[in-house]
Amino acid sequence: MQRKLIALITTAAGATALAFALSGADTIPDDGGRVIAGGESPIDQVIRERSLSPDEAYAALKTFVPPGRYDDLVMVTSGGHRGTVLLIGIPSMRILKEIPVYGPDSWEGWGQGDTASKEILENGSFAPGLPTLTWGDLHHPQISMTNGKYDGEWIAVSDKAAGRVGIVSMRDMKTKSIFKVPNANSDHHAVWSDNSDWIVQNSFFPDAVGQPKNYADLADYKDKFRGVASFLRFDRKAGKIDVTQSFQIELPPYFQDMSILGRGPSDGLYFMNSLNTEMATGGTLDKKPPMEVGASAREMDYLHVVNWKKAEQLVNAGKAKVINGIRVLPMSVAAAEGVIYFVPESKSPHGVDLAPGGEYVMVSGKLDPHVSVYSVQKIKDAIAANNVEGKDGYGFPILKYEACLEAHVPTGLGPLHTVYDNSGNAYTSHFLDSTVVKFTMGPPYNPPEKAWKVVDKVAVHYNIGHLQAPASNTKKPIGKYLVALNKWSVDRYPPLGPLHPQNLQLIDISGPKMKLLADMPINGEPHNSQIMPVELLQAWNIYPEVGWDAAKMKRSDSATQEGKERIERKGNTVIVHGTVKRSHYTPDIVRVKEGDKVVFSWTNVETARDATHGFGLHGYNVNLSIDPGATEEAEITAVRPGVYPYYCTEFCSALHMEMTGWLLVEPKKK
Amino acid sequence: MQRKLIALITTAAGATALAFALSGADTIPDDGGRVIAGGESPIDQVIRERSLSPDEAYAALKTFVPPGRYDDLVMVTSGGHRGTVLLIGIPSMRILKEIPVYGPDSWEGWGQGDTASKEILENGSFAPGLPTLTWGDLHHPQISMTNGKYDGEWIAVSDKAAGRVGIVSMRDMKTKSIFKVPNANSDHHAVWSDNSDWIVQNSFFPDAVGQPKNYADLADYKDKFRGVASFLRFDRKAGKIDVTQSFQIELPPYFQDMSILGRGPSDGLYFMNSLNTEMATGGTLDKKPPMEVGASAREMDYLHVVNWKKAEQLVNAGKAKVINGIRVLPMSVAAAEGVIYFVPESKSPHGVDLAPGGEYVMVSGKLDPHVSVYSVQKIKDAIAANNVEGKDGYGFPILKYEACLEAHVPTGLGPLHTVYDNSGNAYTSHFLDSTVVKFTMGPPYNPPEKAWKVVDKVAVHYNIGHLQAPASNTKKPIGKYLVALNKWSVDRYPPLGPLHPQNLQLIDISGPKMKLLADMPINGEPHNSQIMPVELLQAWNIYPEVGWDAAKMKRSDSATQEGKERIERKGNTVIVHGTVKRSHYTPDIVRVKEGDKVVFSWTNVETARDATHGFGLHGYNVNLSIDPGATEEAEITAVRPGVYPYYCTEFCSALHMEMTGWLLVEPKKK
Repeated sequence: MQRKLIALITTAAGATALAFALSGADTIPDDGGRVIAGGESPIDQVIRERSLSPDEAYAALKTFVPPGRYDDLVMVTSGGHRGTVLLIGIPSMRILKEIPVYGPDSWEGWGQGDTASKEILENGSFAPGLPTLTWGDLHHPQISMTNGKYDGEWIAVSDKAAGRVGIVSMRDMKTKSIFKVPNANSDHHAVWSDNSDWIVQNSFFPDAVGQPKNYADLADYKDKFRGVASFLRFDRKAGKIDVTQSFQIELPPYFQDMSILGRGPSDGLYFMNSLNTEMATGGTLDKKPPMEVGASAREMDYLHVVNWKKAEQLVNAGKAKVINGIRVLPMSVAAAEGVIYFVPESKSPHGVDLAPGGEYVMVSGKLDPHVSVYSVQKIKDAIAANNVEGKDGYGFPILKYEACLEAHVPTGLGPLHTVYDNSGNAYTSHFLDSTVVKFTMGPPYNPPEKAWKVVDKVAVHYNIGHLQAPASNTKKPIGKYLVALNKWSVDRYPPLGPLHPQNLQLIDISGPKMKLLADMPINGEPHNSQIMPVELLQAWNIYPEVGWDAAKMKRSDSATQEGKERIERKGNTVIVHGTVKRSHYTPDIVRVKEGDKVVFSWTNVETARDATHGFGLHGYNVNLSIDPGATEEAEITAVRPGVYPYYCTEFCSALHMEMTGWLLVEPKKK
Repeated sequence: MQRKLIALITTAAGATALAFALSGADTIPDDGGRVIAGGESPIDQVIRERSLSPDEAYAALKTFVPPGRYDDLVMVTSGGHRGTVLLIGIPSMRILKEIPVYGPDSWEGWGQGDTASKEILENGSFAPGLPTLTWGDLHHPQISMTNGKYDGEWIAVSDKAAGRVGIVSMRDMKTKSIFKVPNANSDHHAVWSDNSDWIVQNSFFPDAVGQPKNYADLADYKDKFRGVASFLRFDRKAGKIDVTQSFQIELPPYFQDMSILGRGPSDGLYFMNSLNTEMATGGTLDKKPPMEVGASAREMDYLHVVNWKKAEQLVNAGKAKVINGIRVLPMSVAAAEGVIYFVPESKSPHGVDLAPGGEYVMVSGKLDPHVSVYSVQKIKDAIAANNVEGKDGYGFPILKYEACLEAHVPTGLGPLHTVYDNSGNAYTSHFLDSTVVKFTMGPPYNPPEKAWKVVDKVAVHYNIGHLQAPASNTKKPIGKYLVALNKWSVDRYPPLGPLHPQNLQLIDISGPKMKLLADMPINGEPHNSQIMPVELLQAWNIYPEVGWDAAKMKRSDSATQEGKERIERKGNTVIVHGTVKRSHYTPDIVRVKEGDKVVFSWTNVETARDATHGFGLHGYNVNLSIDPGATEEAEITAVRPGVYPYYCTEFCSALHMEMTGWLLVEPKKK
């Protein structure tokens, strides 16, 4: 008996088995035929066989979502330079969906022959003359809000590689528009206003904004390169940016980086980090300091505090000039009118985050082992008192650091981003330490004597970038879980080749101590995410009407009814008005001549959930996903004679393999 | 006490808590500070709070892979019309990696500016004149074998949409070649021989093979349309098909479908299902029966039994003719020489599977609620005795059904595919019933009295297609788990839009009864998979040498050493020989003129695991993943003047944000 106790107590099974031993019972009744013999239940047996520690067994039971049940929360996550948005269930950490935005996805038919998505991608091109972009570096997905809380209607995403904003509808999980922000070649981050009437972002790399042919040499960097902050009006009905109602503010050629919009006491303010206030431009081949050295020379960079409501008034009062189709408020006006103040911040800052109520702005300078907490009230007071230490080279006043600082919390090496729970705590990621550190906030979240104290730390694996907690950036954070978005996985997975997955880690923050629960490998670079309750997922299971045009968000003019299928010829163009249903195409034979343009318009006349059909055309770059009720179009030119079968690429029925058709391209007569 | 028992016994926590109650102990010692108070451990508490049943708690503990530990098995899975291969851990069901094959992936830089992948994709085009394909319908990934067991070296994948074979190296998890199979517009399946010296597959859709301009009208279907079975010689060193050593056999215009290669008693034989032996061609617009009706008219289709070793002898003896660059054995020769025999099989069959030792061939006719088990010995005897019932319209002898049949196992509605464990059992998927049914095999796996009996059934959700078990198609299946690859998820996940994920389900087959463990949503259509022990993952963590060319699998001639970086101009071409390391590019400034061609050749000089750098070029379709040791190239034409920053897209260090450079395109002088 004693030996058995010692053997068992090393695993989580020990507790239960020990209890059995103590109880003296050999078997106990059970409800599922899982009668326990010899004092070990199937549960204890599997814990022992798999050598799970008590913490591991707890994590297993805490994160498992049984077959048929739903996750509690959904994380809307960036796919990074995959150009996609992912929906991930929490606590199971299962990928529920990957939504293509900036690049093609042949499963969804996105950019894969589908006419509507082709147009959306083309509209998102960088500039006339350059190729249609088929990738983006999708950074920070943002869930639309009503009154400062997620409403689960839209997702806005930035594109660091091209300065774009993509808009995804959460009704059908499809991208509705891609807007190339004028004068911005990049954007690290974009944020919604509390009612999602604005999307606000800023360029990361300065550009030769307004210069002839958009060109200037780096020798003229200080004079001719500029950044922009963009205030983009969102048309909620259309799912698009309305550029006519949007405006920009010209910025000095620092690298403006992460940003947030204020709320409550900070309503009307926009905060941006900056780096490279040194205005270094590199030159490694000429033995000049590389950018990472040149841009890290000064001790402090500048937090930009922007009174964007004042900027809007000035723009509406005619103080802006139009550059590339958008109204731009010049720096000179912004400086003269007090639109922008700078506050010193520890050099090369990464994150700037807002306490849920809008009272504090928290900045992490990557090379300073503290989180700098600025008080919004102190900033306002400093502005009112003109408590400045000077101006930058472009005429912007610099407030005194100490006058604005509320706290300087010693959290660890390489602090990056901060998120919040519902109990007055903040959590900061540390890239160099590979940790998440929890600290208390000040009033009104905690009494002064409990403010700004580090209370817990957990190791993550490895090199965390962002971290996220449910509804952290809203008025009402939820707490419960935290996800560490770790950049490196190194040895956490078996060998998968030189390109490693990244590693998301789920952490339990429901108690006083953080507990690491689970690792999740992920492809792409999930820069950042937002986490919402699963109940906010109110997506359509089928389209509202048969013949739906997903891009226009209404019934398509070219939808085909059953019995009205036809093939029309207009000159060299052949238009196929067809339907799909289990398990055939009408028509299933299309005869054209070499050189004809062929337009396929397919309507899925089914209204059963999950009854998606595909249209894969052999030899061509065409695969459509024709979801229940959808009308989808594709266009090809029949450049080569021959026989081109088409077939349903989405398994639909027992006779799916027979859901086929033929495109016959007759050779030209000689 | 009694009330407490009743309350607790409804969940898995009941067993343990009941034991505590019986034991009379209030607290027991525990090893991790997880002391139990009031009779409930943290484990029991979480079971209760999350309302987990005993089965669910068991499944949680059975499938959870603790942070830092590896999965036991790896499933190599098709991404379907996403065109990718996925590696999934078992039992955790986490996606470890997604490998692009037929389409671009900007995360991996595949087909996204990278010169080598562009060439591989171009080589895989359908035909001259047609666009380079950027998608494929990747069906059945197959792990290479040595002596009939997985060796974990290569993955071969079919492409139903274009009749191609892709080859992925499991050393770096990158695609090395895409081979367009001549005369085949499609291929549902491809199989390795037991030593991976051959990849064998067959076309699905017949084509106008050998007709002028590859064209014929459907009116001439029986005379001018043909299928082909392809025997493709694999060059293991090069990772490519050697077409000069390959050959094909011409086939009647049925839809030849799934196939297997024999081993042991069936060595030298190749088995193919067929459907549409009716030779229906549709015509829905003209009110003819749709394909799924026309192709289901006859009661029986034909299992093709191919003596491919005899075919090879005939080809080598000069009996083939060359069509589109490959030797093709004509049907007339194949029929006259006894290369192919037919065996009747229940109509519209889907799966054809081989018992591990090669003694039995199991076919599922989708509309027959049985698995038909053919004895290889009986087939051979019937051939030797010429026990035929007649010939098909193309002269192929049809063996008598009863003479070849070993058993007709009543398994359920819509049987599709069959896999095997290490205990003499077979498992068949049923699309219509949505079940997996387990039955015993005959000798030598079980004594005759225990043969061919259905012993268990489990419901799956929903509409299962393939199913898979570890090493099922090898000489030595492993058992333990089974994965159901279900086509529809319907209500298994919260609303995710009209396009639903598919649903993989993990099933425990280690005991006499199958147990459903977990659901896993998956995007794309994971048609089929193979499962191998994790130890067979022997991928490189970094490349063997700095300057590695992944496509050529050796050091690149254009690799650049540190200190040897340079920018060369040759006429209108500017070549950047650069290096990347944490955290800068050398060079980080590249000046060119409008209209120049610019070639970037970057070498990652790092040898640290996970130290991948990216090269994202603003405005262009270029994002490279430059893994540790890799040399990667991209080429653009500087069509538009302006400033184009480039930057590291793969988070590499605390100063990753500063890892940037500038492409300056000077305007042409007017």
